[in-house]
Amino acid sequence: MNTAYADLAARQLRSWRFIHLQSIAQWDQAANMPPAGNEARSLALAELDSLLHGMATDPALPALLAAAEAEPLDALQRANLREIRRAWRSANALPASLVSAKTLANARCEHAWRSQRPANDWAGFAPNLREVLALARQEAECLSQSSGLSRYDALLDLYEPGMRSSEVVRVFGALRTWLPGLIRDVVAHQAAETVVQPVGPFAVDAQKALGRDVMQLLGFNFEAGRLDVSTHPFCGGVPEDVRMTTRYREGDLLQALMGTIHETGHGRYEQGLPRELLGQPVARARSMGLHESQSLSFEMQLGSHPAFAGLLAPLLVKHFGAQPAFEPGNLHRLLTRVSPGLIRVEADEVTYPAHVILRFEIERALIEGEAEVDDVPALWDAGMQDLLGQDTRGNFKDGPMQDIHWPSGAFGYFPCYTLGAMYAAQWFAAMRRERPQLDADIAAGRLGVVFDWLSSHIWQSASRYETPELVQRASGEPLNPAHFEAHLRSRYL
Amino acid sequence: MNTAYADLAARQLRSWRFIHLQSIAQWDQAANMPPAGNEARSLALAELDSLLHGMATDPALPALLAAAEAEPLDALQRANLREIRRAWRSANALPASLVSAKTLANARCEHAWRSQRPANDWAGFAPNLREVLALARQEAECLSQSSGLSRYDALLDLYEPGMRSSEVVRVFGALRTWLPGLIRDVVAHQAAETVVQPVGPFAVDAQKALGRDVMQLLGFNFEAGRLDVSTHPFCGGVPEDVRMTTRYREGDLLQALMGTIHETGHGRYEQGLPRELLGQPVARARSMGLHESQSLSFEMQLGSHPAFAGLLAPLLVKHFGAQPAFEPGNLHRLLTRVSPGLIRVEADEVTYPAHVILRFEIERALIEGEAEVDDVPALWDAGMQDLLGQDTRGNFKDGPMQDIHWPSGAFGYFPCYTLGAMYAAQWFAAMRRERPQLDADIAAGRLGVVFDWLSSHIWQSASRYETPELVQRASGEPLNPAHFEAHLRSRYL
Ligand SMILES: [Zn+2]
Ligand SMILES: [Zn+2]
Repeated sequence: MNTAYADLAARQLRSWRFIHLQSIAQWDQAANMPPAGNEARSLALAELDSLLHGMATDPALPALLAAAEAEPLDALQRANLREIRRAWRSANALPASLVSAKTLANARCEHAWRSQRPANDWAGFAPNLREVLALARQEAECLSQSSGLSRYDALLDLYEPGMRSSEVVRVFGALRTWLPGLIRDVVAHQAAETVVQPVGPFAVDAQKALGRDVMQLLGFNFEAGRLDVSTHPFCGGVPEDVRMTTRYREGDLLQALMGTIHETGHGRYEQGLPRELLGQPVARARSMGLHESQSLSFEMQLGSHPAFAGLLAPLLVKHFGAQPAFEPGNLHRLLTRVSPGLIRVEADEVTYPAHVILRFEIERALIEGEAEVDDVPALWDAGMQDLLGQDTRGNFKDGPMQDIHWPSGAFGYFPCYTLGAMYAAQWFAAMRRERPQLDADIAAGRLGVVFDWLSSHIWQSASRYETPELVQRASGEPLNPAHFEAHLRSRYL
Repeated sequence: MNTAYADLAARQLRSWRFIHLQSIAQWDQAANMPPAGNEARSLALAELDSLLHGMATDPALPALLAAAEAEPLDALQRANLREIRRAWRSANALPASLVSAKTLANARCEHAWRSQRPANDWAGFAPNLREVLALARQEAECLSQSSGLSRYDALLDLYEPGMRSSEVVRVFGALRTWLPGLIRDVVAHQAAETVVQPVGPFAVDAQKALGRDVMQLLGFNFEAGRLDVSTHPFCGGVPEDVRMTTRYREGDLLQALMGTIHETGHGRYEQGLPRELLGQPVARARSMGLHESQSLSFEMQLGSHPAFAGLLAPLLVKHFGAQPAFEPGNLHRLLTRVSPGLIRVEADEVTYPAHVILRFEIERALIEGEAEVDDVPALWDAGMQDLLGQDTRGNFKDGPMQDIHWPSGAFGYFPCYTLGAMYAAQWFAAMRRERPQLDADIAAGRLGVVFDWLSSHIWQSASRYETPELVQRASGEPLNPAHFEAHLRSRYL
């Protein structure tokens, strides 16, 4: 008998069905909604939030959780119960007054930031960020008390369950030792290369058709998903109906193309989640870092692989006619240009981790109380000098004001990007050990071997294991930054 | 103090926000959703239905309704309270067991009908329809007991509040006396006309662009709505964000065009509802018949007006180049061809009411227990002989099996189509009394005078008055079929 467990599972299924409607309404808001619909949509979504919050904080849950933990459950049910308790803990750790204060302060700060950033107005931004930080510290303190983790770890655990900052420090510390030198070497190495730029304009309809062809090549199931347009590309919807978006510019072919490949990785992870127990937490994607490991497996490991350029080139010619830039060797050079810069979202594969390390170090110090908002510009500049040789003094808009994460109160998220890049390198290293002919497979378009590996090692596991255990099971070892280093050295030097 | 009323209004607003999400998810299901998403979507929508049903049947409501009725309310609040009580009554009139039996039987009958209709399988269909009818009679009986109306009137009141079948009999009875003769006269009159058919194909993208131009001409606000594609065109969404759909065929230009004009009438009604009290029942569209009076005001009164062809012709030429069929006189003849046939949804403005009268007479007899399912084919054939001179013996698929309404259990809906056509004729007769130069206005493209009249007399009233009172206030008299007759005679003879 597992009456309490069955009750909890039924509640999860009910929430999941409301989350389905939430996902579709949010996707619609980004991809379809005309401007005058925004206010009503926001109110409708807030009403649904409040319903879901009520379900997640139902006073009956603690007794049900305790009763279910004493019931005879199989391993999958036990993993599901662990995830149900984790979600319950984070939904109930914060007093209602803190939740509403956070919502208000984050919305105010983010709203003002949208005009303060272009105006480079750090002085206007800092007091708002101070308020957001004060509440994020309170949040971290509450989560820390209920989970027993350190404050920053308690936030990190929201995005990457089971990951600890000591582990992030270990792997990022390794990166820090070799990354700045590697960047210099790669830039020097590429200085001698000749790269032919694509000549546009590239009609948006043709770019869309190309995107669809590439998604087909990458195994996206259009019976269970769509590709549309939004200002900020994302992958939404539900596993049964994945809603991907891209953004097109007539002058820039490769940005939308690689964005589409990236989101296809997120989309296939969702489409590949196990149908057994669908709607239960154990059947959902594991974490933000794991999700990013899928998009980066597609965009970087596979999509920027030298042999993949040979698969892309004929599709580019099909949709835009032949031109010298589409020659596979040149295409690969285009897709792997390295150039240190100020902006994270424009960074290449090699310099991206430097942006993330910088943010992780600063936000951890902020949350742990070792730094204050006023210290941020100096910390930022020192880090950018050190990691990327960039001077950012006085340039707040392309410095600590560039990301939406802090103004919206999302501390603890940044490490996931680079953890994802490291996981992805580790997956492909494991694949190559199992299948030494992997590069020949890719060159021959036998991409199924990649998808099958990801499906059986990552997608099908969903949230059965916490991240460190999943990494160990999938790749036979804990997170190991040596694979990421080896990947970058072999691709870029 | 109106504490109980305020409580009721807050509950309505909360429901309305969930209905917003329901409308968008339903629109998405029809316009966007890939096939594999259907099962999860249906389950999510069923969960939302059950939430809304729980809110509508909350045991606290009867006491709140009684308390609110004793509170000091202004006229608008009182009208809102009347609508809240009406919705409460219909949501609570049926025992839960009947609701679920109906859902099951209707789904089973409709599902089987989808293959039985093309197979002309009346023998297979009849037993399912008998079950659906038995439950519809029980529903009518329950609604009748809670409202004090006759059984058929209780169903009719779900779609056209305040309308009674005695009134429908009165106006349809008038129609019955002159319609068959008028149809014969029009057919004879048109026999001598020469009509040039448009020469296609008409590219779907150009049809879409034409549709958008026509919607602009008709004042649709694209800041608060969209036009998309679905198999069955409809107008969904919410007043702040109206989601219209059309269907295109390369071989048939006018069908999508007139369908778009029709749905634009529905859409402008929704966009024109008062923003004051939005989310309350009093601020919603009045009824199905009133809604259809708006779509038919746009499609028939305005869109098929001889002078409107002069506005359409340049848009057709803009998108498809000049051709003889687009000459305004010819275009008007194309849009007003009359031809008796078997199928309601393909019927023209003149023969359409005959299809509706037939269905009304049969469904009323079925609900009141004066006829049984086995009587339907003979009743159908007699009616079609009588009204349209058509022999339907043995042809069930183009006879009583042609509509989705009965297999899905929607008895009481059919009269709304022709009530809508009559209301529309009555609106334009009232407009012409107030503004004798109306036809010259239309010819000159001064369509704002039409929209302003509809806005101030219909849209802004929303559900403040029950239908008969709204008709009286808008046009100065009760529903009067003479206006519809005069409209048809002047346009078609
Ligand atoms: Zn991503
Ligand atoms: Zn209609």
